[in-house]
Amino acid sequence: MSYTAPVKDMQFVINELAGFADLLTIPAFAELDADTAGAILDENARFNSEVVAPLNHASDTDYGKLENGVVTTAPGFKEAFKQFVEGGWQGVLHPAEYGGMGMPKLLASPCIEMVNSASLSFALCPLLTDGAIEALLTAGSDTMKQTYIGPMIEGRWTGTMNLTEPGAGSDLAQVRTRAVPQGDGTYRISGQKIFITYGEHDFAENIVHLVLARLPDAPEGVKGISLFVVPKFLVNDDGSLGKRNDVWCASIEHKLGIKASPTAVLLFGDDKGEVGAGGIGYLVGEENRGLEYMFVMMNSARFGVGMQGIAVAERAYQKAVQYAKDRVQSRDLTGGKEPVAIINHPDVKRLLMNMRAQTEGARALAYVAAARYDVAHHSPDAEAAAQAQAEYEFLVPVVKGWSTEMSIQVASDGVQVHGGMGFIEETGAAQYYRDARILTIYEGTTAIQANDFVGRKTTRDGGALALKFAGAIKATIAELETLGDADAKPVAANLIAGVNAFEQVVGYLVQNAKADPKGVYAGSVPYLKLAGILFSGWQLARALLVAKAKLAAGETDRFLVNKVATARFFAEHFVATVPGLGSAIVTGGASVNAFTPEDF
Amino acid sequence: MSYTAPVKDMQFVINELAGFADLLTIPAFAELDADTAGAILDENARFNSEVVAPLNHASDTDYGKLENGVVTTAPGFKEAFKQFVEGGWQGVLHPAEYGGMGMPKLLASPCIEMVNSASLSFALCPLLTDGAIEALLTAGSDTMKQTYIGPMIEGRWTGTMNLTEPGAGSDLAQVRTRAVPQGDGTYRISGQKIFITYGEHDFAENIVHLVLARLPDAPEGVKGISLFVVPKFLVNDDGSLGKRNDVWCASIEHKLGIKASPTAVLLFGDDKGEVGAGGIGYLVGEENRGLEYMFVMMNSARFGVGMQGIAVAERAYQKAVQYAKDRVQSRDLTGGKEPVAIINHPDVKRLLMNMRAQTEGARALAYVAAARYDVAHHSPDAEAAAQAQAEYEFLVPVVKGWSTEMSIQVASDGVQVHGGMGFIEETGAAQYYRDARILTIYEGTTAIQANDFVGRKTTRDGGALALKFAGAIKATIAELETLGDADAKPVAANLIAGVNAFEQVVGYLVQNAKADPKGVYAGSVPYLKLAGILFSGWQLARALLVAKAKLAAGETDRFLVNKVATARFFAEHFVATVPGLGSAIVTGGASVNAFTPEDF
Repeated sequence: MSYTAPVKDMQFVINELAGFADLLTIPAFAELDADTAGAILDENARFNSEVVAPLNHASDTDYGKLENGVVTTAPGFKEAFKQFVEGGWQGVLHPAEYGGMGMPKLLASPCIEMVNSASLSFALCPLLTDGAIEALLTAGSDTMKQTYIGPMIEGRWTGTMNLTEPGAGSDLAQVRTRAVPQGDGTYRISGQKIFITYGEHDFAENIVHLVLARLPDAPEGVKGISLFVVPKFLVNDDGSLGKRNDVWCASIEHKLGIKASPTAVLLFGDDKGEVGAGGIGYLVGEENRGLEYMFVMMNSARFGVGMQGIAVAERAYQKAVQYAKDRVQSRDLTGGKEPVAIINHPDVKRLLMNMRAQTEGARALAYVAAARYDVAHHSPDAEAAAQAQAEYEFLVPVVKGWSTEMSIQVASDGVQVHGGMGFIEETGAAQYYRDARILTIYEGTTAIQANDFVGRKTTRDGGALALKFAGAIKATIAELETLGDADAKPVAANLIAGVNAFEQVVGYLVQNAKADPKGVYAGSVPYLKLAGILFSGWQLARALLVAKAKLAAGETDRFLVNKVATARFFAEHFVATVPGLGSAIVTGGASVNAFTPEDF
Repeated sequence: MSYTAPVKDMQFVINELAGFADLLTIPAFAELDADTAGAILDENARFNSEVVAPLNHASDTDYGKLENGVVTTAPGFKEAFKQFVEGGWQGVLHPAEYGGMGMPKLLASPCIEMVNSASLSFALCPLLTDGAIEALLTAGSDTMKQTYIGPMIEGRWTGTMNLTEPGAGSDLAQVRTRAVPQGDGTYRISGQKIFITYGEHDFAENIVHLVLARLPDAPEGVKGISLFVVPKFLVNDDGSLGKRNDVWCASIEHKLGIKASPTAVLLFGDDKGEVGAGGIGYLVGEENRGLEYMFVMMNSARFGVGMQGIAVAERAYQKAVQYAKDRVQSRDLTGGKEPVAIINHPDVKRLLMNMRAQTEGARALAYVAAARYDVAHHSPDAEAAAQAQAEYEFLVPVVKGWSTEMSIQVASDGVQVHGGMGFIEETGAAQYYRDARILTIYEGTTAIQANDFVGRKTTRDGGALALKFAGAIKATIAELETLGDADAKPVAANLIAGVNAFEQVVGYLVQNAKADPKGVYAGSVPYLKLAGILFSGWQLARALLVAKAKLAAGETDRFLVNKVATARFFAEHFVATVPGLGSAIVTGGASVNAFTPEDF
């Protein structure tokens, strides 16, 4: 059940595909260099593989409990979190002025990946805290920032996102939690929130709940939602903790997976606190702009959940490889009398290549997107920053949607490699299959990502940005064709068919979005998957070009040979499916919508 | 959590696609008629939906226990099994002379489907007993048949299959369990068997273990395996139970799903019985021909597991439809102020259509295969019987492999439809996702099915039978082209591309199987999936033709309209992916095998 962080692949992506050297030319990262970055990754890898990863399997069964409103987390989690924050890992991305490391997202992303490979359940607490910090950095008052961000980076406090209610899941217009102004600048919050990850726990002395609620006179719908900070304990002016606020954990869900992350039902305004009736809350930013601020959290969290998909896929892959090397069964197809390790059997290899290639492709795409974020947030060139921001936002739904969809398949393949042992819980492969299943649901289902990808990201600008990506893919194809060897050719051929299908789909979406929204949105998830596969194939093709160049220059690292093989495998087995997906999107809208609800 | 058996679709497939009327011309089924068949299906549907289905969800948590070697099954299971056998349901397929109903497999299959939709865990006991009965019918002595089959059909006793050992999973050549002849016609069996479904339970007074073991002088490998009956209690000459045999349940596995079916580790020869050291066993058929007899059980069980895939997919679909109709969230894409039931949203429809179309397609294919079995076993025309047997055997790995692979995807889609609620165990959708995960593993993994499909079923006759299926598909395409309307055209177009890809793949497999076995077998599972999709699409296209003809003749049943829409959906969304799969098989063998084991 061990985990070895794939630092070499991370470094390759960071340096060769995502343009780390370019980032270093940005003044904000002037003090950073490759050695420092490498040291950070190595230390993070050590910490997560030695401290967090060993806790993961046991925490699936011994996952803590709720008693008298108090949540005790899985054995070892609290101590590991203490080490996590002492190591500074909560602050990798966050500004130095609040105690963070101020690193680019390009370096924070592998750190997020590693802690999630070590344990999805554990990593959710830092992931949500990151979102809370980013929301406060964006929209919080100076006092709020000074009060909350430092302690969250130190890990004395943690953050949550309180969006969902029983009647308001994907549709936040239905939020009913009320916020009543008290005339003293504070508000009293009352209502019920569900699915609150780490809504209650024992990692920290305080929990900073960020809560969507509606003012008494707020307009209906999403334009009437405001964002509030509602700390579990009120904070005195000197930063010490004050009264227990009126927010309570009513229950913890019994879940399919990520069992060691407590998912709370929170009651606000149950009048059991030391503050009277109603959770005391503080408005973040302006009234009725909550959705906008929430999207800051959401975008951070969506990217983070995409990283979770890559992370669990990597862990499932490593476990399957280990089993396939150890398990001896059946003779080799090419002969021999004795049974061999199953890793020699072609279908086991195919499953492992499926797992590896999808994971590496999704990782490359996510890190490339992360570098776009860094340019967007830190480049002194305003135009470059704006362009990078648009590209980052274009890629976020793909990173979230595709990395998580593929992670379920990868975890399932991991079970398959284990055969009957995969179905036995003690083996551990089944845990990844259960854990991964939440990833396409929370922080916006794949359909929500795909609708965003079709609507805001593709059709709103008439497909301009999407076609720009197509152009970049064609530039890579041209390089492959120039190279023109036995590996580059099939990769190029599949990418050509893929990018043609992509362009055809974009044209179809743009042309029909208004006239036939139901037909177009019937293809939204297939479009997201198509883009996920194509863009991953593109990044792996870029990796192939780099590897070939290094090999041609005399480097002999087997890693480079494997990069080439992985790119080719992905092109032949995944990119090859893109035209079929494209056909389904362009021709299949009507048949999705043919049934009335009663027909089902 | 209710289940409504899809009897109408079953009847449609039985009568319109699988040729029930033709079966009635076979003397063995002379006394059967459509009314009797209908009554059987209706009563079976009532029993399973009213008696078995309500137990399924609770049995997932309260799944019984092993104490002092005694297994207590989930609450209600034992009583339901009593009703099951009293209803005669264990004997649907089996000969009247042993107390069975002697029905065709074409009618037994929907019965198997229904009990498995009601509860996979419950249904495994009858499924394994079916296999034991078939093995004894094929290879057992008259005494054995007289002794064991009647009580198994009555449900006083049940059957098991004891194949797997810690070192012998997919590779039965490694079986090490020993059978030592005692000179009195009996054998003493010793060894350990694992993953024995219903290896111990409280449903019945005796358990008839069918056990693979090796004689002291047996040749190595699969040619040295013999099959034995090892009853839990010895049977006296008058059929009453005698001494407790030396076979013991050492433990029950802690599994991802199908938790209410006890999966036992069985120890033979632990010397704790009333018979001295060694389980007393009786040779089935001849020495060293165990593998051959075991394949009778396996083929029965493999088809049955394929039905399990269809069954759990149907149940997951019904649950998702119900939730999608009940759950109100977000406004309709075409306008309106109020949120609507999510079944109106295109991506939810797409997911439900995915689930429905795959389930109906796999059902049609499986029942068509079942009718081939009936012709093979009962037709007085020897040539027709031989041809039908070959076709049935060709289809078994597809029914097993594809129905189960798609069931995992369908169950996963079912979770997705439920959003966050799908991840909460109380909802029940997650149970299907966990339960389905075993189906691609037991009774031969998908790779085992696929290797059989490539080797014995496709390349051994030089692709002749595979191309015969292609010809039948082309005949359907010709009918679609004659019809030539807006539904038939896209279905035909996708089938043409699909069957062309299939033929190309068959040619590739035949041509390269000897020279490049690793490349060919790297494509075995994709080939099985390709065939599963293409053949399902073909059956749905046949359904479209029937439905269109009935509509043209004035029938107005909405069921027929939906059949047309489902066929078109499947063609546009699934058959459309076949060429991409074909390309992966034909071009992608080398890249699967490029890595050495050390490269992973």
